[in-house]
Amino acid sequence: MAGNTFGTIFCVSTFGESHGEAVGCIIDGCPAGLPLSVEDIRLELARRKPGGGGASTTRQEADEPEILSGVFEGKTLGTPIAIIVRNRNQRSGDYEAVKELYRPGHADWPWDAKYGFRDYRGGGRSSARETIGRVAAGAAAKVLLKTFGVHVRAWTQAIAGIEAPLWGNPSFNDEEIERNPLRVPCKETAEKIMVKVDEARKNGDSLGGIISCRVTGLPPGIGMPVFAKLDALLAGAVLSIGACKGIEFGAGFDAANLEGSQNNDAIFPGKKSSCWQMPENVPDVSFQKNDAGGIIGGISTGAPLEFRAAFKPIPSISKPQNTIDKNGIARIIEVQGRHDVCVCPRAVPVVEAMTALVLADMILLARSDRI
Amino acid sequence: MAGNTFGTIFCVSTFGESHGEAVGCIIDGCPAGLPLSVEDIRLELARRKPGGGGASTTRQEADEPEILSGVFEGKTLGTPIAIIVRNRNQRSGDYEAVKELYRPGHADWPWDAKYGFRDYRGGGRSSARETIGRVAAGAAAKVLLKTFGVHVRAWTQAIAGIEAPLWGNPSFNDEEIERNPLRVPCKETAEKIMVKVDEARKNGDSLGGIISCRVTGLPPGIGMPVFAKLDALLAGAVLSIGACKGIEFGAGFDAANLEGSQNNDAIFPGKKSSCWQMPENVPDVSFQKNDAGGIIGGISTGAPLEFRAAFKPIPSISKPQNTIDKNGIARIIEVQGRHDVCVCPRAVPVVEAMTALVLADMILLARSDRI
Amino acid sequence: MAGNTFGTIFCVSTFGESHGEAVGCIIDGCPAGLPLSVEDIRLELARRKPGGGGASTTRQEADEPEILSGVFEGKTLGTPIAIIVRNRNQRSGDYEAVKELYRPGHADWPWDAKYGFRDYRGGGRSSARETIGRVAAGAAAKVLLKTFGVHVRAWTQAIAGIEAPLWGNPSFNDEEIERNPLRVPCKETAEKIMVKVDEARKNGDSLGGIISCRVTGLPPGIGMPVFAKLDALLAGAVLSIGACKGIEFGAGFDAANLEGSQNNDAIFPGKKSSCWQMPENVPDVSFQKNDAGGIIGGISTGAPLEFRAAFKPIPSISKPQNTIDKNGIARIIEVQGRHDVCVCPRAVPVVEAMTALVLADMILLARSDRI
Amino acid sequence: MAGNTFGTIFCVSTFGESHGEAVGCIIDGCPAGLPLSVEDIRLELARRKPGGGGASTTRQEADEPEILSGVFEGKTLGTPIAIIVRNRNQRSGDYEAVKELYRPGHADWPWDAKYGFRDYRGGGRSSARETIGRVAAGAAAKVLLKTFGVHVRAWTQAIAGIEAPLWGNPSFNDEEIERNPLRVPCKETAEKIMVKVDEARKNGDSLGGIISCRVTGLPPGIGMPVFAKLDALLAGAVLSIGACKGIEFGAGFDAANLEGSQNNDAIFPGKKSSCWQMPENVPDVSFQKNDAGGIIGGISTGAPLEFRAAFKPIPSISKPQNTIDKNGIARIIEVQGRHDVCVCPRAVPVVEAMTALVLADMILLARSDRI
Repeated sequence: MAGNTFGTIFCVSTFGESHGEAVGCIIDGCPAGLPLSVEDIRLELARRKPGGGGASTTRQEADEPEILSGVFEGKTLGTPIAIIVRNRNQRSGDYEAVKELYRPGHADWPWDAKYGFRDYRGGGRSSARETIGRVAAGAAAKVLLKTFGVHVRAWTQAIAGIEAPLWGNPSFNDEEIERNPLRVPCKETAEKIMVKVDEARKNGDSLGGIISCRVTGLPPGIGMPVFAKLDALLAGAVLSIGACKGIEFGAGFDAANLEGSQNNDAIFPGKKSSCWQMPENVPDVSFQKNDAGGIIGGISTGAPLEFRAAFKPIPSISKPQNTIDKNGIARIIEVQGRHDVCVCPRAVPVVEAMTALVLADMILLARSDRI
Repeated sequence: MAGNTFGTIFCVSTFGESHGEAVGCIIDGCPAGLPLSVEDIRLELARRKPGGGGASTTRQEADEPEILSGVFEGKTLGTPIAIIVRNRNQRSGDYEAVKELYRPGHADWPWDAKYGFRDYRGGGRSSARETIGRVAAGAAAKVLLKTFGVHVRAWTQAIAGIEAPLWGNPSFNDEEIERNPLRVPCKETAEKIMVKVDEARKNGDSLGGIISCRVTGLPPGIGMPVFAKLDALLAGAVLSIGACKGIEFGAGFDAANLEGSQNNDAIFPGKKSSCWQMPENVPDVSFQKNDAGGIIGGISTGAPLEFRAAFKPIPSISKPQNTIDKNGIARIIEVQGRHDVCVCPRAVPVVEAMTALVLADMILLARSDRI
Repeated sequence: MAGNTFGTIFCVSTFGESHGEAVGCIIDGCPAGLPLSVEDIRLELARRKPGGGGASTTRQEADEPEILSGVFEGKTLGTPIAIIVRNRNQRSGDYEAVKELYRPGHADWPWDAKYGFRDYRGGGRSSARETIGRVAAGAAAKVLLKTFGVHVRAWTQAIAGIEAPLWGNPSFNDEEIERNPLRVPCKETAEKIMVKVDEARKNGDSLGGIISCRVTGLPPGIGMPVFAKLDALLAGAVLSIGACKGIEFGAGFDAANLEGSQNNDAIFPGKKSSCWQMPENVPDVSFQKNDAGGIIGGISTGAPLEFRAAFKPIPSISKPQNTIDKNGIARIIEVQGRHDVCVCPRAVPVVEAMTALVLADMILLARSDRI
Repeated sequence: MAGNTFGTIFCVSTFGESHGEAVGCIIDGCPAGLPLSVEDIRLELARRKPGGGGASTTRQEADEPEILSGVFEGKTLGTPIAIIVRNRNQRSGDYEAVKELYRPGHADWPWDAKYGFRDYRGGGRSSARETIGRVAAGAAAKVLLKTFGVHVRAWTQAIAGIEAPLWGNPSFNDEEIERNPLRVPCKETAEKIMVKVDEARKNGDSLGGIISCRVTGLPPGIGMPVFAKLDALLAGAVLSIGACKGIEFGAGFDAANLEGSQNNDAIFPGKKSSCWQMPENVPDVSFQKNDAGGIIGGISTGAPLEFRAAFKPIPSISKPQNTIDKNGIARIIEVQGRHDVCVCPRAVPVVEAMTALVLADMILLARSDRI
């Protein structure tokens, strides 16, 4: 475990720097016989590309994936699936200016403090391009999850404090998500946010936001007490995405203000399921609400799994900022180049990917819960 | 990895059910030569015992730890340190009533859905008694961290929405924390909260709250991109504590509402440190504020590491609740017995323990960052 | 991974020094619902106790196991199973003499070179008592394997060059193994070896030997290419037993002298099995012989799994030997105390335990080979 | 852990099928600042290419490595180092004939029994081409080991029972190893073996052999009791190489025939070393001989580490053999194509690579042995 591998039996290792030769991943532990094509990968990668919505950089990235191994005649072999994406649009010259300066809010200085050395071009390994490997692996995880009837969906919940309606609200429109470039599940909210985004771009500033995620079809019994609780793993997975600063499940931080009689979820008899995961001697249940966010005691309840994650504003802004150079001398920096205004729209598929990776691994592990 | 082991080279495995023979842990990977005594463990375990403050159960737990291995002549051997605490005050009879019923908000039903079988006495493995193993291991991790000059401190930030002053505020009193049974760093706030706690207890209800944690002395360069980012590991560690529903680092969810120019932290020249972790060719820095909570790009910055975690109200309440029994029949349950009103005061040492475990592991791993 | 944990999803951690408080293990990842009793553990531990056969020490060890967790109402809970055995017969005084001297052939000096510090009493953690934790865990693994129809049997193949007949030979007597204290599957050979053992004991010397192991009922398809090949894992498992110096599978070192046409195993149509592990579209096979030892390409073939392991003579001998003391001064040492003459008879259950641990883990993992 | 990743903090994952797009590896956990070039990789890969010596296939493999990430300006970044080698000389047509037949001695059938599906072209993932990833990663590990003064050297000890002189013998010629295509450290022995190799090729047969490995410069204190003993890890590493059927350390299987007084190694005062790994308070030693092979109690002693590994004859022979087809029908197979006669010469760099991977990992881990 050297930091770039994730999972126990459905394992993903990512590699690559922003301006190196390529980024990519190896998926080890995907069961044999799963139909998987390069098109499955390409579709997910397309979702993390810069859109036209204005919240994203206009840098053109082809992001054409190549499957190097692990798939034969359209099906997974049970062997490692290696996927690479070449880095093409490398204008390293753009970054020479910041070679000597540490950008505030970026990992430049901590990286140097750790390794004594870094690839300064475009953030190197701490670039958002690293998530290409995650999204490619997540695409395979999603295909696997589909065979279990599990569906993962994330969206932009809020940018700069402007909130979309909550799931369950009539204004919440599931199908709208992929229609607008901000991935906000409500056209009106999207339009309001876009005004704010345009303003920030003009000011050379950036914006923070919140991503929500909802998983349906997840059987009960997934997650492993005590350290590999489902929420613990998801928290680790989502917080490993750059710029993420917090996560909450179900009622989350609001639960801290509630009384037990308000927060507890009454249990009622449920409809008989034929889920592989349910032992025969255990009755099915239904829950009144879902303040728990679909996880109690670290184990899925069968109710929709729901969490929200906070993302800080992108640190690349063109306003002048105080910093120091490699010699420790105080300097002023103005970050140039094409940058996203808010990370959320493009981070949506990354949140989905990380969620899918956790669930794929935990579902496979759950096969050994009982003799 | 079957869920009960935590860490990469400083590894902790916990075991034990609430009403089984014992709970405890094995610490594997603690370096040799560290002075460690049973008293170090006992002191930390005493902190998670029920206090007199009214927020905790009156169940008497001796919690006397025994070190079975790994320590010789007062020093660690580099071999596994096994620590056990016998379960003494086992009134299993108390729990016969709920043997047939699933308690709302508890892991009873998900546990059955997963394993088809559970130790229903006192919650079994999902009991808070499981944290004894964590706190015992955390005690050793704290001793190790002290040799690196690292200090971990947590406290109750809020209960039922009544907030203590923030760190840095003149009313914040570090020394007050261990003086009042709620572990609130402000006497006046503690008294206000106590009124609320007494009221909830009388009503047979419970309360949620927030725990804050602050780590000082942590060198820069700790944490491993990309999946083992320091915040990702801490999020996973803290969310693995029962009842925890969310975590945020630094500005956290507030950062989602900020602009980059507000959230970014200006960098200034810092005082020369002689820290083992700093490469010679990298300049020291200081930060204007610390919205990042001491972590950027998943790597510690040397500024204090700060996070907040949300805890839901304890699900054991004596008010009547809807549920079902093992046969799927709808029933009403009134949970009897002695229960805490709010988990926060006793969870403070558990949050510290999990934080210490992550940091001990990551600091040891950082020894191999550079040749 | 700090060296004292073994396995991926059926994980075992052992702990304990020879003269500390206790030795034992935690088994994490045993599926729920497996019938397991302390008697299952006790029976296996009894097999590694000193026998009356003269090859073993006369040190009396009660070795009474206690299950601290993970079992409820006679069945496994799916939670960690902690097992401890108190160290009772600790005559530490016996070892004061060697406190200052490094015993040749023992781990005393390498241990000091590594940790700068050791528990010198009875070898500390490098004592054969450490294998109690392995055998206890192996007992649980054997119970699990039995549910899959898998049976693990080891025996003493040779001591001091005197060989028992090979499996398949009419003189090979499976039932004789546990009848004679040397665990040799042939009464006549056992008697010949005993003469040699008595002679060595009188001379204050010790003897090396070979243990064979044979697993029947193992389905095909177990083992994970490429690094977790079944033979690779077994080699690592068996070589982790103190005093083991080599291992070979099937024809082993003899295969190095053969031609492909001699070593290859012809394939013939097999009887239709209904094994869970066999995919429907794959034909069953039978093999002409079994030079491969039941493993090809790191995957079990369904034929009996067979290997042999070499054990060096026990280094504790009472003849005078050259060594140095803690100050580096040349000295003569004569190791006193009660010691086994040959490790093999007592190592037989340890070899079985390690084999069972590997197979339990790999069989559970094989559940995720295909979608 | 899904079988294709090796190591704890210096971790290597390999991927690729023989006739897929590419084979390769990711090295995760290589410390930053290590000088590493594509030439370092290329040189090691060249050593595993078919030579002109007649023991190897004449298949032309360019095996041109490409470093995709983790190296910047000639030095490692501390990030994952991805290396790929394209598969060029893919004459898949050659293998269509065996698509329907299971080759005796090959992993074809066990692979089908496990996954229900395989890439039949050239053995797919079970091809020796998989070792390209290992050798590439081993090249980096060797560069790292060199900074610690550790040198790994393997050679062909025997083929078809014709043995080279043992190390220490005057006829043993270290420099001869890379001069003759068989990698035998003695010209005369190499010539004798070549006669045997030519004969086998003419007969359409193949030969087994033995590889020896010797590591010098390894400091004492490397290896982690109890399951990660240095010999246990090396055994697992070397047995994971296809065709390897056994391993022995130091006196190995011969030790089973010895008495303790013969096998024990007397200890004498040693020359003061300034090795980072030696604690100040522990005296240096020297050993009389080295029957232990440089490892006692799973920890390196500072003496040369020595082991031997047995390799079976290559199963691809052109003589007719009994087998079955995919429908379970009995058939005769005659394997066509270009195949090595003996795996040993080309397996030498693979044995070195696996040894280097284990040592790199264990040396980094040993940095945390003591506080």
